[in-house]
Amino acid sequence: MDSHIIQALKDIVGADRLETAAEELQCYSYDGTGQQFVPEAVAFPESTEQISKIMTLASASAIPVVPRGAGSGMTGGSLPVAGGLILALGRMNRILEIDEENQIAIVEPGVITGKLREAVAPLGLFYPPDPASLKFCTLGGNVAECAGGPSAVKYGVTRDYVLGLEVVLADGRILETGVRTRKGVVGYDLTRLFIGSEGTLGVITKIILRLTSRPTASKTILLLFADMAPAAALVAAMLKEHTPSTLEYLDNTALGLVADKLPFVLPAEAKAMLLVELDGDGQSVALQSSRLDDFLAGHKEILLCKKAANPEEVEALWMARRSVSPAAFNLKPDKISEDIVVPRSKIPELVACAEELSKRFKLPIFTFGHAGDGNIHVNIMLDKANPEEVSSGAQAKEALFREVLDLKGTLSGEHGIGITKAPFLGMELSETSLDIQQQLKKLFDPLNIMNPGKIF
Amino acid sequence: MDSHIIQALKDIVGADRLETAAEELQCYSYDGTGQQFVPEAVAFPESTEQISKIMTLASASAIPVVPRGAGSGMTGGSLPVAGGLILALGRMNRILEIDEENQIAIVEPGVITGKLREAVAPLGLFYPPDPASLKFCTLGGNVAECAGGPSAVKYGVTRDYVLGLEVVLADGRILETGVRTRKGVVGYDLTRLFIGSEGTLGVITKIILRLTSRPTASKTILLLFADMAPAAALVAAMLKEHTPSTLEYLDNTALGLVADKLPFVLPAEAKAMLLVELDGDGQSVALQSSRLDDFLAGHKEILLCKKAANPEEVEALWMARRSVSPAAFNLKPDKISEDIVVPRSKIPELVACAEELSKRFKLPIFTFGHAGDGNIHVNIMLDKANPEEVSSGAQAKEALFREVLDLKGTLSGEHGIGITKAPFLGMELSETSLDIQQQLKKLFDPLNIMNPGKIF
Repeated sequence: MDSHIIQALKDIVGADRLETAAEELQCYSYDGTGQQFVPEAVAFPESTEQISKIMTLASASAIPVVPRGAGSGMTGGSLPVAGGLILALGRMNRILEIDEENQIAIVEPGVITGKLREAVAPLGLFYPPDPASLKFCTLGGNVAECAGGPSAVKYGVTRDYVLGLEVVLADGRILETGVRTRKGVVGYDLTRLFIGSEGTLGVITKIILRLTSRPTASKTILLLFADMAPAAALVAAMLKEHTPSTLEYLDNTALGLVADKLPFVLPAEAKAMLLVELDGDGQSVALQSSRLDDFLAGHKEILLCKKAANPEEVEALWMARRSVSPAAFNLKPDKISEDIVVPRSKIPELVACAEELSKRFKLPIFTFGHAGDGNIHVNIMLDKANPEEVSSGAQAKEALFREVLDLKGTLSGEHGIGITKAPFLGMELSETSLDIQQQLKKLFDPLNIMNPGKIF
Repeated sequence: MDSHIIQALKDIVGADRLETAAEELQCYSYDGTGQQFVPEAVAFPESTEQISKIMTLASASAIPVVPRGAGSGMTGGSLPVAGGLILALGRMNRILEIDEENQIAIVEPGVITGKLREAVAPLGLFYPPDPASLKFCTLGGNVAECAGGPSAVKYGVTRDYVLGLEVVLADGRILETGVRTRKGVVGYDLTRLFIGSEGTLGVITKIILRLTSRPTASKTILLLFADMAPAAALVAAMLKEHTPSTLEYLDNTALGLVADKLPFVLPAEAKAMLLVELDGDGQSVALQSSRLDDFLAGHKEILLCKKAANPEEVEALWMARRSVSPAAFNLKPDKISEDIVVPRSKIPELVACAEELSKRFKLPIFTFGHAGDGNIHVNIMLDKANPEEVSSGAQAKEALFREVLDLKGTLSGEHGIGITKAPFLGMELSETSLDIQQQLKKLFDPLNIMNPGKIF
């Protein structure tokens, strides 16, 4: 990056808000994918106006700009693959407004998701989306990727909570989209065009979020099955009459990985696990729980039903679920983790496919995820130092994607496309769709400076 | 329209599926606005392929094409203001698939909203959006306008139920958007770009809808207040801890209009009414109802609380609500009906503004609508034969819009922009937003043949 550009950036954000030292650049070169691309500079803007000036400058000099939240993305959304400038948005972390009466919050993009939850809780309010990284990921990143989480089965994903945005466009113009009301249909839906656009259309600088009432009670139940098929069938039946706030599953391999973490002895015949959570106020949870008991009592295919009696037992059950990812590295040192979705009735087919691929490619492959919405995390374990395993892993991933699309699923549920899935976009989207999407990209970013190299 | 175009259209849809007779054209010249624009021809396509051919032809000859469902729109979305061809989609009325296990329906655009509700009910499924016209409006129109309804306070609007679309573009290409799964973030959100785009970006030919479980019980409660302010305050308080499926209000004038329709004597001091509905299964409704009773018992500002004891009483209470619109014509022969939204805490200000405008412009003005989401229908009554009233009505409308925007509201909640609000778009949207939206329109429809004259 030319020194006059560096100076111009310093003039905009302040000399102490621009980093070009190699060791500092390293800190902004990675994300949840484990891949690394080093930027040329990192700016720490503190206002929409500064970002507008930066984008005007970047447009004039055709400098790539990559917005970055916490760098916790799973598909490379915040990696500066074409070099250029990282916009580190961590200093834009103010909760600008909590409108208690209208159940709305207005935040800057660098607010950590969990912090918003904490801030609104004392007011009896709730921001439902709960990506696994919620203690450190940012709302700007959540919006850019349309993050989900276990609670999506009841509450929906980030998209369902964003009412409006402020965005700085590639040319520096400031765009306000959407509304701060519960409804709104004025003009084209620019808000949702930016949601999930992974920083490729503009820089999100403000987010208007819908909140709900906070559930004050919950109930956690673990169910074991001899096979994935009856577990999936139970999910479909359960969702007809019950509204769990979480409905997670582990397949046979995933269950085996955490058997010793469970607060009870895992029956030998258990090959699939469901973790169900109900939430609401105390009375409502009691009623839901009693209704769910009646439902479960009629299902003899359940090997074991374990209810958490207290917060410690809840924690123990969730511990097992959360231990899957770390325990996986006992199998192999590296992991290809894919976030895919199938119609929830097709989960058994998808699990069977993963098992078949595991045998065919001689790599451990296991699945777990959000059974309620068919959003599954498929983990292909391998050793990246072994070229044969790298090749097999890549082939297994592509075969998996083909199966997902055959099952009328989609290649990403909540992690986005970024760089890890960009080569596969044409498997799911038609030429017409790709053409329209590329034209949209060009409309918003004719110089291709907004997070170049992503999605397409 | 040239005779060779007419012939080419007949070749596509069949001679008996194209109308050019003046008396037939009349039937497709109006909508819910009462305005009239006569098309040059009406085609009744029966497949995506036919529509694709029609659009290819229309592009080659620069013929305006206006998709039309039931013609029940409130802002002129289906009116052929530039002449050309009406695509009457009523024959594309097949429910293509109901996927019970995954709670998904795939429909053609001409399916009547209420028919889908009826079709899925026996399976224990539910399509929540309930525009007032649901017995005759079509799902294609609902998607094009992003229709809402009373149940939006609990269930959301059309946007929240559309997973994916098939759309024929202006140039005849067929585009598939979205997913048939619960989650999906692959590429830009084209689905929601089409939702609410009022037929200006393409012709919707297929809709993938998310369904929910059907509520089997409900409870209806009517509340009266001496003023709008305590009613609105109660709404905000209620929504913190309760989840009504409907939360409608009538202001003082609206209440007066239907006083004689109520199944009880209206207390003289009653100046505002709330209609609350709870739904769910029997046990859940009983619990919700008992909790709501406790809540209401603590609110001494409620003049009267009337619970419907049986379906007849429910019907009587709703009768009163539904009688507002027809009864309004006792005041004046014509009506300007505006669908606006304010943060729900601002409803009292909006109601006060309507009363003030009524005095200032010497026209009856009253409001009613969806108190739970601040989506209000403002009715300015006038006599169109009286030029002074027409002028006053127009001024009152513009003053109303200014107040709505001052209250941080939006000019349309569920009826769209069409032609009736197009002149006011610049009041709400910035130059940057309008520029982007017009560029989007140009991207999808460079010849401006898709429903020209709408929105902008």
